[in-house]
Amino acid sequence: MPYITLTTDFGQKDGFVGVLKGVIWRICPKAQIADISHEIAPQNILEGAFALWRAYRFFPPGTVHVAVIDPGVGTQRRLLAAKIGIWFFVGPDNGLFTRIYKDAKLYKWSMECVHLVNENYFLPQVSHTFHGRDIFAPIAAHLANGVALSKLGPILDNPVQILIPEPEKTPKGWRVHVIGIDRFGNLITNMPTGWIEEKGNVHLRAGRFDVHGVADSYGAYPPGKLIALTSSDGQLELAVVNGSAAHITGMQVGDILEVIE
Amino acid sequence: MPYITLTTDFGQKDGFVGVLKGVIWRICPKAQIADISHEIAPQNILEGAFALWRAYRFFPPGTVHVAVIDPGVGTQRRLLAAKIGIWFFVGPDNGLFTRIYKDAKLYKWSMECVHLVNENYFLPQVSHTFHGRDIFAPIAAHLANGVALSKLGPILDNPVQILIPEPEKTPKGWRVHVIGIDRFGNLITNMPTGWIEEKGNVHLRAGRFDVHGVADSYGAYPPGKLIALTSSDGQLELAVVNGSAAHITGMQVGDILEVIE
Amino acid sequence: MPYITLTTDFGQKDGFVGVLKGVIWRICPKAQIADISHEIAPQNILEGAFALWRAYRFFPPGTVHVAVIDPGVGTQRRLLAAKIGIWFFVGPDNGLFTRIYKDAKLYKWSMECVHLVNENYFLPQVSHTFHGRDIFAPIAAHLANGVALSKLGPILDNPVQILIPEPEKTPKGWRVHVIGIDRFGNLITNMPTGWIEEKGNVHLRAGRFDVHGVADSYGAYPPGKLIALTSSDGQLELAVVNGSAAHITGMQVGDILEVIE
Repeated sequence: MPYITLTTDFGQKDGFVGVLKGVIWRICPKAQIADISHEIAPQNILEGAFALWRAYRFFPPGTVHVAVIDPGVGTQRRLLAAKIGIWFFVGPDNGLFTRIYKDAKLYKWSMECVHLVNENYFLPQVSHTFHGRDIFAPIAAHLANGVALSKLGPILDNPVQILIPEPEKTPKGWRVHVIGIDRFGNLITNMPTGWIEEKGNVHLRAGRFDVHGVADSYGAYPPGKLIALTSSDGQLELAVVNGSAAHITGMQVGDILEVIE
Repeated sequence: MPYITLTTDFGQKDGFVGVLKGVIWRICPKAQIADISHEIAPQNILEGAFALWRAYRFFPPGTVHVAVIDPGVGTQRRLLAAKIGIWFFVGPDNGLFTRIYKDAKLYKWSMECVHLVNENYFLPQVSHTFHGRDIFAPIAAHLANGVALSKLGPILDNPVQILIPEPEKTPKGWRVHVIGIDRFGNLITNMPTGWIEEKGNVHLRAGRFDVHGVADSYGAYPPGKLIALTSSDGQLELAVVNGSAAHITGMQVGDILEVIE
Repeated sequence: MPYITLTTDFGQKDGFVGVLKGVIWRICPKAQIADISHEIAPQNILEGAFALWRAYRFFPPGTVHVAVIDPGVGTQRRLLAAKIGIWFFVGPDNGLFTRIYKDAKLYKWSMECVHLVNENYFLPQVSHTFHGRDIFAPIAAHLANGVALSKLGPILDNPVQILIPEPEKTPKGWRVHVIGIDRFGNLITNMPTGWIEEKGNVHLRAGRFDVHGVADSYGAYPPGKLIALTSSDGQLELAVVNGSAAHITGMQVGDILEVIE
């Protein structure tokens, strides 16, 4: 089966996502299409990159991941398709796939990017404002149909990357960044808990809040308690049992926590 | 065709729902997946139970219904799969399926529950925080593939049930509970209108509001009028024509109405 | 493959959309179903008509488009199915498809409407409050299965149309209406930019804001600038680069802009 996923900042009210599905099905009639997120904040490339990164590796080999958070639509920014590991990626060349490039390096996956210039694989008419419809959806459908990456355009060997903050070593431990807040108000950081030597004894300072130790699960503590634990993606995360760590701490994406070992 | 539905409190922004779909398709490539709701309030088992109950019986025989509202994830709460009537159910054993158990009793359907302990049908690595991904989605996909319930674990004959309020008989009629408020602001109660003997003459008292008679439809009255009618699920419901009964009455889930016959 | 799309005001929380999918799959097991929008404001036929119009023509021939924004459910309003051009449409006869009728006239497509009266194609029990479930979803599934339109009921040759505002000619140019605001806050008008003779010189007056010229894309201007451009649907649109024109201008659906040529 051909699988295609969609990650956008289109929202779910206006019908834009439906447009993409129609375009895909006209070209690849059997495509199974999954929405990863359409609620990315408008133009927030970092947030889109994170949602896609959370999900992409769980999909079957050959899945085509389309991501359209595209503040530069209609300008000279490049259009990109890539095969990384066992998956394809299609979207603007604005850094949306930076986390995937990092995974490719980490896991030594193959990686090939092309610059989408062959208009034979676009819709016949291309607007200046909706390349998701006119370029990315048709390209994804053609890839799902088995069209070779090399037919879509020449190799692009320097895809744009965005700066993704990394934990910084300090004399006592690490300074880590909040990189995501999920629907439950969990604060997800950029530090894998695998880096922490003694999970039981570590001390976290989050603004005026102190947390001691990294818990095993939300459920092992009383409701309302602020705890640290390993997120489902393997990252250090602050959570409030049956509550919202974001609400209680007031922390936001980009804020800093200290990890003291 | 194998069908799987998803009812969760994950929201639609973070990509968690996409993760479930990827996991499912890797195991059951032909699964058709329907979202029932991902907007259940975090950890609100009662609300999730109601949304699933509204929808489950309209799906084809063999459909696997996955529900993940799981405040106890990572604790000792049990993991459950069941065949009830012609459908399968997968989720935490926390009462999410209580309404289905009641239907099984009412309609004399067969019901078999198992305790999910056979890790061969989980993902290879199981986190402490995302059993939807690591356990429930793969189990659902294996059930959709035709794996027998009995292979997943031993029989579980006392599944947890939550307290679902029932109408209470009073000398003059009934005290009934608001059990749901839908997007239109309709207040849905736990009383089937089939129990009311004379629909034309019944008197409803909802706080300081009085309603006389149960109408046939929203459209038969002028906009703005507070009416009672039979919900699409057969329940007594308060509605405002082209408006919101929740907004006008200020009533909430759990509030009481008096039905005076 | 049979394709069905859904456009409703049901929201995504309560499970109503899942109900429709279950009903469809029981009748047409292979249907691929796309959500166009479920976030249409309750009972807002004009908004639903616009979202469906944006998306319908991108779907494959034979796609059945179901739309349920239905303030008159349960009253004497008629139920309609239509074949217009290469697509089918199913919903209440309340003007939801007016934009499609206009397209049929414009593009000289064939158009045949029937009045849904043959109850053999409804669910066995029809409620007064949820015709989406009991009538429109089953009809759509039967159409997707290849049932002829003529079997569903007699010809309906005067479908209800809603008033869709058109640009008005003025001595100096046009008075145009805001007909939609998308998630990005773009203000979409009812005037095709193809009608403007000199895009570089046109002057737009939007309340106390003046815009000169119609730009090619969002990205060609600095963030924060209010610009006019051609929407992805070919309409004149006001946008703020990486911002919200709706927020900055305070304009709403129905407001007027002056186009001075």
